[in-house]
Amino acid sequence: MDNRLLTHFTRFSPLSTEEIEAIDETMRLQQYGRGTVLLKEAQISSDTYFVLEGIVRQYYLIDGVEKTSDFFSDEQWVISLNHINPNNPSPYYLECCTDCSLLIGNSQKGEGLFKKFPNLETVSRKLMERVFTEQQEKIEAFTINTPTLRYQNLLKSRPDLFQRIPQYQIASYIGVTPESLSRIRKRISKRN
Amino acid sequence: MDNRLLTHFTRFSPLSTEEIEAIDETMRLQQYGRGTVLLKEAQISSDTYFVLEGIVRQYYLIDGVEKTSDFFSDEQWVISLNHINPNNPSPYYLECCTDCSLLIGNSQKGEGLFKKFPNLETVSRKLMERVFTEQQEKIEAFTINTPTLRYQNLLKSRPDLFQRIPQYQIASYIGVTPESLSRIRKRISKRN
Repeated sequence: MDNRLLTHFTRFSPLSTEEIEAIDETMRLQQYGRGTVLLKEAQISSDTYFVLEGIVRQYYLIDGVEKTSDFFSDEQWVISLNHINPNNPSPYYLECCTDCSLLIGNSQKGEGLFKKFPNLETVSRKLMERVFTEQQEKIEAFTINTPTLRYQNLLKSRPDLFQRIPQYQIASYIGVTPESLSRIRKRISKRN
Repeated sequence: MDNRLLTHFTRFSPLSTEEIEAIDETMRLQQYGRGTVLLKEAQISSDTYFVLEGIVRQYYLIDGVEKTSDFFSDEQWVISLNHINPNNPSPYYLECCTDCSLLIGNSQKGEGLFKKFPNLETVSRKLMERVFTEQQEKIEAFTINTPTLRYQNLLKSRPDLFQRIPQYQIASYIGVTPESLSRIRKRISKRN
């Protein structure tokens, strides 16, 4: 098993050799070039991705305009709504912003694993609690922070994004126009 | 066990008599009057609430101004960040907007239950997937919808809120000032 995935899982619970082998058989490693679209709007998929390298962007296409809702990078999970109801068409796109190395899981196969290895269900439950918390923090940031503060926090918490993602996508993610982001950056650089 | 909680849980998995009894021993029913503050900013708590009746509001206090981030009503779960790390102080308040009837659970006690009853861990995992999905839809609504559309969707999906919640709290939840909400409402009523 990839060491990063093993380290990630064992944060939630130790794993037996059988459990590690079972995960290995269920998840597969895949390389994608920059610009690859992993999921399109209206497609149906129950795949889940664990990002080993690269950045995956989630965006909506609204009247021809992209609205970026998330960036997933090192050791983050890309879990779709479709994970829960495999018959729901995706409302968004998933795209590789850079060359990506991803581990792909599948929720149906996951259910099979949990029946055989209750400990893996514990790992999955704790993992869901973790991603739920991360989402709650994201909602919090949108509720209470100004766009300027959201930009500053992003600079601090995910500096990798700024070297690899075009400004207009970062602006969309923060929830402002590219022009507003330029003004925010000028104001901040004047202060420093 | 309260019938609504039982119905809620059995959507995820059937429960045995022992499992029902164990949940009954772990969760307690409590009545709260309107205006009761369940959790204050900076308080530490690992309690989780299942709303049987009434509405619970989550809000942040930013420079003396309340920012409403969520309303929880019939058969919704109020799960705090603290659920994951019981030593984290709460960044928000939880307040009963109406008289409330709540079932209170506790994450430490939950962990004990899961060790004894693996099926309850399955229920909990599926429940976390469900609330994660609901959160994802909420982020989606904020990412792609205009405030007018957010207001219209809220009218459709949660009409109960409008009879029982002051306008300024609904405005805050939608992410606009009370004055903007008045303008939105006037525009919509003119169209109809």
